[in-house]
Amino acid sequence: MTPPHLAGPLLTDLYEITMAAGYWAHDVQDRATFSVFARNPDQKRNYFVAAGLETVLQELEAYRFSREDISYLQSLKLFDPKFMEALQKIKFTGEVQALPEGTLFFPDEPILEISAPIVEAQLIETLVLNTLGIATLIATKASRCTHAAAGRPLVDFALRRTHGRDAGNQVARSTYIAGFSATSNVQAGQRYGIPVAGTMAHAFVTAFDSELDAFRAYAATFPDNTIFLIDTYDTLAGARNAATIALEMQTSGHKSLGVRLDSGDMLELSRDVRRILDEAGLPEMKIYASSSFDEFKITETIQSGAPIDAFGVGTRVGVSADAPYLDIVYKLVRLGNRNIRKLSPGKVTLAGEKQIFRRLDSRGMYGEDIITCREETLADAKPLLEPVMAKGQKTKPTVLLTDIRKNVEKNLARLDQRYKNIRRHEAFPVRISAKLDAMQK
Amino acid sequence: MTPPHLAGPLLTDLYEITMAAGYWAHDVQDRATFSVFARNPDQKRNYFVAAGLETVLQELEAYRFSREDISYLQSLKLFDPKFMEALQKIKFTGEVQALPEGTLFFPDEPILEISAPIVEAQLIETLVLNTLGIATLIATKASRCTHAAAGRPLVDFALRRTHGRDAGNQVARSTYIAGFSATSNVQAGQRYGIPVAGTMAHAFVTAFDSELDAFRAYAATFPDNTIFLIDTYDTLAGARNAATIALEMQTSGHKSLGVRLDSGDMLELSRDVRRILDEAGLPEMKIYASSSFDEFKITETIQSGAPIDAFGVGTRVGVSADAPYLDIVYKLVRLGNRNIRKLSPGKVTLAGEKQIFRRLDSRGMYGEDIITCREETLADAKPLLEPVMAKGQKTKPTVLLTDIRKNVEKNLARLDQRYKNIRRHEAFPVRISAKLDAMQK
Repeated sequence: MTPPHLAGPLLTDLYEITMAAGYWAHDVQDRATFSVFARNPDQKRNYFVAAGLETVLQELEAYRFSREDISYLQSLKLFDPKFMEALQKIKFTGEVQALPEGTLFFPDEPILEISAPIVEAQLIETLVLNTLGIATLIATKASRCTHAAAGRPLVDFALRRTHGRDAGNQVARSTYIAGFSATSNVQAGQRYGIPVAGTMAHAFVTAFDSELDAFRAYAATFPDNTIFLIDTYDTLAGARNAATIALEMQTSGHKSLGVRLDSGDMLELSRDVRRILDEAGLPEMKIYASSSFDEFKITETIQSGAPIDAFGVGTRVGVSADAPYLDIVYKLVRLGNRNIRKLSPGKVTLAGEKQIFRRLDSRGMYGEDIITCREETLADAKPLLEPVMAKGQKTKPTVLLTDIRKNVEKNLARLDQRYKNIRRHEAFPVRISAKLDAMQK
Repeated sequence: MTPPHLAGPLLTDLYEITMAAGYWAHDVQDRATFSVFARNPDQKRNYFVAAGLETVLQELEAYRFSREDISYLQSLKLFDPKFMEALQKIKFTGEVQALPEGTLFFPDEPILEISAPIVEAQLIETLVLNTLGIATLIATKASRCTHAAAGRPLVDFALRRTHGRDAGNQVARSTYIAGFSATSNVQAGQRYGIPVAGTMAHAFVTAFDSELDAFRAYAATFPDNTIFLIDTYDTLAGARNAATIALEMQTSGHKSLGVRLDSGDMLELSRDVRRILDEAGLPEMKIYASSSFDEFKITETIQSGAPIDAFGVGTRVGVSADAPYLDIVYKLVRLGNRNIRKLSPGKVTLAGEKQIFRRLDSRGMYGEDIITCREETLADAKPLLEPVMAKGQKTKPTVLLTDIRKNVEKNLARLDQRYKNIRRHEAFPVRISAKLDAMQK
């Protein structure tokens, strides 16, 4: 049985199963290698942050068709009963080479290469793409926000607008990897150990007779975790009410963490609110802001000089609104002893099993990538794809999320500023080795 | 325990739980009504198709915090142990009024109104928004495609690029409601009884020594379900190979369903392929097309005169690429005997419990909507919000997906063409009754 947090083998396009049936019926059993990579047709991203590998490996280790799965497939009246018997016994027995989660990568570079008997390797295509796609899409988008925020904490507020529940949990995980401090999503907190955050919404404020009553009630219940939402009626009056209650809290030895702005002109309001809090003798109270923030609005807001200390980041990041999907593909590159290319217009694939080498420049920054044949070695460059699964079993322990997060930070420090520009396309230099190029003829 | 296909109460923003704790601590127990509606800030949609209600009702019926949920919340060291005891006992005991799935609705109209003791009604906010949001987003996007296709069958191919697995299943369900014929997603087929479809990818073609061998192998395995993918090497040569195998199939009493184009100039290729098939005496073979289709590309392709019979529709619809989120909100509109408004700039809410009446014009088409107070009646118009849950239990049987699908079709037939324009914003007339307006002062 598939464990409840995994999707299992029926999360697939039907054609993976019909193709597998075709291979099986014609005794095509060769070892196949499929390569996963992302195209960048709109040039909206200068780099990507790899994420989602851990879930892929868990899915592959647990890959089994249940009795219910098989009887559903039988009900379609498409498949040879003998193929159904074979499918019921199938496990994933292959090898996986992959970029560790948190690796920065560039368009057309292999993120993952899977080698297995072609039936197995074909069956898992959709599951692999779906899993890596959302995780990498959001880790990439979120890392742009982290860069834009220049050290100010960011909190994931996206859950209410993500594309369903799995997306909500993946967004929390991927934004955390990319440097966010916390998530509002409690299930993601439970599942992944990510810090959770959040205080009050407008409903809470309107549920009491006055804003002052609502603030006082909240502070009494959470004396060490209060952020006042101050824009329900009038933001400046709200700031004064927040100051009043914060001063009351001091008399019992507690402190308010700050206030949150959720609408209006962020520059003007944050300046006025800062002045109100400072004049009340509360310079340590922070100003949090939410409402349609993404890397673009964060940049503008900071550049305007708005005294905002931290951002709640929701919808636009949780759906990667400016680029809402990753153009990720899974292509057959080798079968048996044959390297394979696809030639459809605009969709050419690099044949053969590959490796990526990353060369540092004289400053220790990322200088260039060279995509090579799998077996090549380059003396002065680091190979990026690592063996992570053999004979269907993970070969490395699960990496802690906090360690992935540190790696992303370290990796981004080695990427030149010009590739972090959120508005201008800058292609990182990626070239192909002479040997790999020769293989394409 | 939460059933495996449901998300359960921890799929929530933390602040729903802290607010609930605040209400509980201050003995705020009044009956609250929250209203769910969608804004349309970018005016990219002229109408929406309601979807997702069935899952919301299932979540509410099953709403229980498990022992594990409570111990996770305790580990946060935020909550009073007595509140944790209360939370462990909580069920949803409220009422729900909702638009049946498949109802067309317009910006700012209530989709759902939930009435319950405020602690319960607050706790479920995020879960309700997340569930309705993705389902309605995609049903709306897909219905634009159905309209554009003008009777040609559409198949959902989005699974590999949806935002995770739950999104994949919701996309299959919502596109089916909106008139798609089938999905490639096998899990959605199993779960919802939606027809599944799909044949081969480029990998299958390249896995054999020649395209002809690949086509022949596939036809042997699925003699009654073969669509040849013809663009792996050269589309026109592919069409000729498909014709060759289709003629071979005839000698054993079978027929190919057709061919699929997945790249290149759709007009030019489909015309040439049509001619090749017709000249081979295979006029009944259909031309399927995939590759970046959405309502815009479908419209252009059909207008160009391309002889395409059916479309595979993937990524752009599965993420609603031109409008990738629904600006859906959950607002407190009544507490005890008090109607409640929120006044934040740009985010004003209509106070009070409401109803929507839809009036037909002289042609029997949708003429206008009137949002009224809940208790108002209008003699010549139909109320749209229906009671669907009382005391935490569903009050109506689950509607068959095929019936929802028929209702969408019937509803769309009553919507004037001008609101179905996919490029021009046209606001359907929605007004507010005098009584509801008076309540806003």
